[in-house]
This record gives sequence, C-alpha cells and structure tokens, in this order.
Amino acid sequence: MHKLKIRIDMDKTTAMGPGKADLLELIIETGSISAAAKRMHMSYRRAWELVDVMNHCFDEPLVITNVGGKSGGGAEVTAFGLSMLQSYRQLIRKTSELAASEISSITRHLRKETH
Amino acid sequence: MHKLKIRIDMDKTTAMGPGKADLLELIIETGSISAAAKRMHMSYRRAWELVDVMNHCFDEPLVITNVGGKSGGGAEVTAFGLSMLQSYRQLIRKTSELAASEISSITRHLRKETH
Repeated sequence: MHKLKIRIDMDKTTAMGPGKADLLELIIETGSISAAAKRMHMSYRRAWELVDVMNHCFDEPLVITNVGGKSGGGAEVTAFGLSMLQSYRQLIRKTSELAASEISSITRHLRKETH
Repeated sequence: MHKLKIRIDMDKTTAMGPGKADLLELIIETGSISAAAKRMHMSYRRAWELVDVMNHCFDEPLVITNVGGKSGGGAEVTAFGLSMLQSYRQLIRKTSELAASEISSITRHLRKETH
C-alpha cells in the first residue's frame, strides 16, 4: 500500500506532518496527550515533544495543557490548532485530487509485494 | 525558511522523497554514487542504501552501477529513473501552485526566527 505524505518543515524541524496531524486529532478525541500517545503506540514523552515542537514552530499554541489536573495531562487543541489541522488535511486532499496523475505515474510503478 | 516536503511511501519505506530525488539528480550530474554522496554530505554507505531502497521499491531499477570500474562506483540513472524523478519534481511544482492557499494558510503562521 502506498501513501502520500506531506510535511511542512521550518528550517530543519517538521512543523506539520502526518504524525503531528494524527496526534492533534487524537488529542481532540481523547482530551489528553497521554491517551493520544497510547492510541498511537508512542511514548508519552515522544508525544509531548511533538506537541512542544508544534507549539514552538507556530506563532500561537496549537495545544494547551492543563498541568496539575487530576488526570495528569489533560490537553486541549486550540481553535488555532484546529485551523492548522484543517488546512493540513485540505492540503493533502487537494494534492491527492489535483496532482493525481503525477502521483499515479509514480505509484503505478511501485512493486505490490512487501519484501 | 519553510519547505514543502512530499514523500511517497510504500508500506513503511519511502520510495521517493526529497533526499532520494536530490541524490538521483546528483548521480546524473556526477555519474557516481560516491561523488553524489559527497555533495550531499552523506556517507557512501548511506547513499548506496537509498539507491538500493529505490531500486527495490519500484518494478524497474532507477540507478544501475558499474561494479569493478576503475573509478569504483560509476553509476547511471536509467530512463525509468529519470522519468520517476521528473514526475516527482512535477508533483512538487503542481502542489506548490495548486494548493498555494492551503500551504500559505499554514506557513504564514510559522515563526520567522530560528531558535
């Protein structure tokens, strides 16, 4: 199975990409970084780092955390974070549609079997 | 400075992406994997691995090597490899043009300073 992956890098850091977008979605769904991390089979530390990178790359925070809460890691995706997520998803969708012939001229030559 | 990066993954392997495309271009230019590797500040071993991954992901080789040559590592990008490279470059170009508003709605919120 092939997959189109799009990243937006700032200098040498990925500001937005497939992993960060999935993480944002799961934080929205679960309301917590640790629950989102678990769903992605990722350590809490790693998920926290991804959030921290995003929050530092952009001029507004995408995720705010409620430190000291009973659940220890309650988190919320901000309106700004949601808007970045939506723009990213739309970028993928638009590319898949509008550059379908270029994508397929590459992917139709990919071997089917895993090895 | 921000950069749009597009990868095409097959299963968990990147079949084509920014590094592999640059490597193909430098192999065309230099006629050798080791010279291309040097220009990318990459070990010969790493460059050779990238070539090997590409050649295994696609149904035809993108690079053929002339083993045993005096120069030890003469390499040639095949017509097929060139066509994959061109499709990939066109995919980037088309995405940058046609999804410009989605890209800019993300990148205009990136912080300008490095940190």
